[in-house]
Amino acid sequence: MPTGTPRQHISAQFNAELEAIQNALLEMGGNVEQQIDLAAEALLSADSGLAEEAIDLDREINRMEVDIDEQCVRILARRQPAASDLRLLITIVKITTDLERIGDEASKVARQAVRLASMGIDNPVRAETRRITARVIQMLRQVLDGFARLEVSEAARVILSDDDIDEDYDIALGKLQSAMKANPDAISAYMHLVWALRSLERIGDHASNIAEQVVYLARGVDVRHRGADGIRALLD
Amino acid sequence: MPTGTPRQHISAQFNAELEAIQNALLEMGGNVEQQIDLAAEALLSADSGLAEEAIDLDREINRMEVDIDEQCVRILARRQPAASDLRLLITIVKITTDLERIGDEASKVARQAVRLASMGIDNPVRAETRRITARVIQMLRQVLDGFARLEVSEAARVILSDDDIDEDYDIALGKLQSAMKANPDAISAYMHLVWALRSLERIGDHASNIAEQVVYLARGVDVRHRGADGIRALLD
Repeated sequence: MPTGTPRQHISAQFNAELEAIQNALLEMGGNVEQQIDLAAEALLSADSGLAEEAIDLDREINRMEVDIDEQCVRILARRQPAASDLRLLITIVKITTDLERIGDEASKVARQAVRLASMGIDNPVRAETRRITARVIQMLRQVLDGFARLEVSEAARVILSDDDIDEDYDIALGKLQSAMKANPDAISAYMHLVWALRSLERIGDHASNIAEQVVYLARGVDVRHRGADGIRALLD
Repeated sequence: MPTGTPRQHISAQFNAELEAIQNALLEMGGNVEQQIDLAAEALLSADSGLAEEAIDLDREINRMEVDIDEQCVRILARRQPAASDLRLLITIVKITTDLERIGDEASKVARQAVRLASMGIDNPVRAETRRITARVIQMLRQVLDGFARLEVSEAARVILSDDDIDEDYDIALGKLQSAMKANPDAISAYMHLVWALRSLERIGDHASNIAEQVVYLARGVDVRHRGADGIRALLD
């Protein structure tokens, strides 16, 4: 197409709009990442102040979800995009839902941190909490990177690494049940740690869901409900 | 428009397609409802056979999610629908995600039921489990009804009734913690009941999420993150 035609002008503007939405999604992901970090740190250091910061950040994340969804609907209505862009927009709408729910889970971790801070029990699952947190943050970073670069194998690795979290999670739950048994008076305090770990584990699930969306976007293949072998086939 | 024009023909066909997708969504909802019922019954009667039925049904529900999503993308690509139909299709895509995750939670309840069946502990939260199950099934029915008839006040009531579940849930968790304290050797068995209740409670959350989507569809107002007062304003 010759330069400077009205059609190219429209198309350049459209591409700029798509890029703006993608950047907004990555920014939302960055905020969610920061929120998980704050919440986990609040839990490990029994710091209510950090927990409040994490909870405050959730409002911003919620606002971003609504905003990005609206941008997608507006662009769909106005531009009547072709199949591939359409799929991108639908995928973005699905990803914002998971990012927002990751934010909810991070807030839950923060709220458990506040309750734990006043209870003064010893945390017997520090090491597992740190590992699970590092892993879910890495998964999130990796999947957003996979989204930005449409990297299927990156996304597939995220889905597979969810299993590593489950291992640490099971060990941590076992330790907490032993701690409860040894000290039944502290059962309700330990339950706060159980819930916090559960939320961290669910963040991993949501990151996997996002990864499935990235695979769908890049390949047009729906890998939801496929099982590990179906996923491994996507690795380079 | 005069009868029998090609334009009307296309529009009638388009409406038929939209209606088919809506019906598929309601059918998926019916399956999910049945699955929750089976899983909860399996939990209450410690019946592994019922639990297996619930888990089997999950495969069908997963298949329906993928199928409905594909129908939506296909229709968006081919029909370039106007704003209101566009919103309907985006909402359906979001609702299938929540229905599928309700199915996942019901499967988790069923899996806990299988584990509990072999442990033979007394269930101290039968009454609460029954009430929470009845409530989440009612929420789901109500919200799908609200979707079918675009009834905002029906959807608003679903969002508000989520609080009643939280009350029963807190009572049940309190009872389970007391049971653990009284019988520390059975902590891991009671934890299966904790997880089952947690999954039932999350089904209520997902029903609320669907209700928010129905409100958005009917009114174009995003009530996510609005708080109870914002929701009450939507009642008749």
